[in-house]
Amino acid sequence: MIFSQDMIIDLEKRYRANLINTLGGFKSVVLIGTRSLQGNDNLAIFNSHFHIGADPALCGIIIRPNPINQNTLGNIINTKQFTVNHILSDFYKQAHQCSAKYEAGVSEFKMVNLTSEFMDGIVAPFVQESKIKFACEMVQQTDIEINGTTLIIGKITKIIIPDELIQTDGFIDIEAGGTITCSGLDSYHTTQKIGRLQYAKADRGVKEI
Amino acid sequence: MIFSQDMIIDLEKRYRANLINTLGGFKSVVLIGTRSLQGNDNLAIFNSHFHIGADPALCGIIIRPNPINQNTLGNIINTKQFTVNHILSDFYKQAHQCSAKYEAGVSEFKMVNLTSEFMDGIVAPFVQESKIKFACEMVQQTDIEINGTTLIIGKITKIIIPDELIQTDGFIDIEAGGTITCSGLDSYHTTQKIGRLQYAKADRGVKEI
Repeated sequence: MIFSQDMIIDLEKRYRANLINTLGGFKSVVLIGTRSLQGNDNLAIFNSHFHIGADPALCGIIIRPNPINQNTLGNIINTKQFTVNHILSDFYKQAHQCSAKYEAGVSEFKMVNLTSEFMDGIVAPFVQESKIKFACEMVQQTDIEINGTTLIIGKITKIIIPDELIQTDGFIDIEAGGTITCSGLDSYHTTQKIGRLQYAKADRGVKEI
Repeated sequence: MIFSQDMIIDLEKRYRANLINTLGGFKSVVLIGTRSLQGNDNLAIFNSHFHIGADPALCGIIIRPNPINQNTLGNIINTKQFTVNHILSDFYKQAHQCSAKYEAGVSEFKMVNLTSEFMDGIVAPFVQESKIKFACEMVQQTDIEINGTTLIIGKITKIIIPDELIQTDGFIDIEAGGTITCSGLDSYHTTQKIGRLQYAKADRGVKEI
């Protein structure tokens, strides 16, 4: 099937949402924990989290102009903090349920039965059930005017990883840790490693690590 | 293991690159095809491609300030076009090898033995071996000053997908199509579906599709 630009524009709204959301390939899917100035904890599932750089250590999230995402955005702007928590297949349904629209002040942690966890100096809640998780401080907010979304860039300020998942070169074996990936808006997947490849050089062939 | 902000800053450069690149979870990994004004084709592997929106259909890539990425960036700025091509396990080593630094004017397609393919009205090359692929027109270029990277936003102008992978609701079964995912800078993975979940609502439990 070949879709031209006119065909893409004319697609039924929900069909296009599924098509374009799956088109970009597998994605990072994480739970973002935030806290309001009034002390209410919020937990939201995001599939728009991505790596921006390692030095300084930075990540980005695209935040959509809908009420659930806007709660997260408001909390980040007010406190400058958020946590990023990997999702395991054990609790992927609870993670997905965080996208339901609960009333203001209701904590998703309680509604979906996940446990909030706190660390010194960080007001945003972590997810206790997540093995790999990190805290970020907002360093940039950029409006993407073309579709009304917001890019938040966070500096990574604390990282929690089980010792046995960190290899000698710093590589975290997130597959061994059970981290899942997603496709589109609602499809969740485990992974199976094909191989790890050495730094590519023009004068030699590809080598496995 | 808990890494504080000071510990993250003090990590050995390569160790930190592996750690932070794996920390964000599984990522989209794609081949980006571009053409120079002189007519030289370029093919580069990127793990920083992400979804921005479905209406209009938009995607983003973060481009690093290194020579290989800068070739891609220069071509996109000059022609306003690029293609995004999914990677299959059949040719993941060839895709990885596109990150080697070849001399200017040398086509990665030839060096790694992948086939360029062209479509009416689009100067940027597609990868014939990719089953799922799409063309983009650059609509925004934003410098991320905090680390010298560049965010390119592309509007999706043409999409090619095998008919049998598109479900009735627009969902593309990229796993059935063999699309792979990556972790960190160099680890490649196939996927296995856990489940697809219905739109979450506050007044009911999670349901599979």
